Amino acid sequence: MASIFTRIINGEIPSYKIAENDRYIAILDAFPLVKGHVLVIPKQEVDKLFELDKETYSGLMDFAYDIAQAVEKAIPCLRVGVAVIGLEVPHVHVHLVPLNTMNDINFTQPKMKISPEEMNEISEKIKSYL
Amino acid sequence: MASIFTRIINGEIPSYKIAENDRYIAILDAFPLVKGHVLVIPKQEVDKLFELDKETYSGLMDFAYDIAQAVEKAIPCLRVGVAVIGLEVPHVHVHLVPLNTMNDINFTQPKMKISPEEMNEISEKIKSYL
Repeated sequence: MASIFTRIINGEIPSYKIAENDRYIAILDAFPLVKGHVLVIPKQEVDKLFELDKETYSGLMDFAYDIAQAVEKAIPCLRVGVAVIGLEVPHVHVHLVPLNTMNDINFTQPKMKISPEEMNEISEKIKSYL
Repeated sequence: MASIFTRIINGEIPSYKIAENDRYIAILDAFPLVKGHVLVIPKQEVDKLFELDKETYSGLMDFAYDIAQAVEKAIPCLRVGVAVIGLEVPHVHVHLVPLNTMNDINFTQPKMKISPEEMNEISEKIKSYL
């Protein structure tokens, strides 16, 4: 079965899209640790980051760099943190998390609930810096 | 004052070195979350990951890819996770963490104490896969 991210990429499940090209997509995390928590995803459905061929991996990281620059401008934070864990969804995804404390990137924390209106606002704000 | 990582790079402070070239270095984290926890560091002393120029950033990530492949072979784990947080040492460092559970990459957890003999063994084992 297609991963949830493939279904998002195919438009079968809605998302707050930040950016997209033919190989990668960036969306707001639907279960954010903090406001402005973004996922950067290769369209190729591969489980593990280090199973990606090096060229696809490098392209993913370069795509993430550009998105992170925009997140850092759009969201008040000390810096944007990065995490790739992937034990829950078997499709590579890079977390970009605006950090104000160490605990902001602790994935054992409860996730935030943000209204659709605010998710939309956050996504528009990040896009305005791309 | 030079960061602790610059002092390690300059050989003023000992470390368990995994790999090094003219621009990047990989060492065992002296305060590991799990066995085989590695730090990948640019020799250029810059505080934040996304303050690195894109070329230096891409080189860092490519260097991390090669190290992660070796860690994944050397250390029993489900996969190698990645984290860049950086609120404690103001010199970019990419954590590569062999994961068996989500909590293995929770930085609010207490760190492990591993004997020098075992740190040496771990570092030699990872290097044997490079």
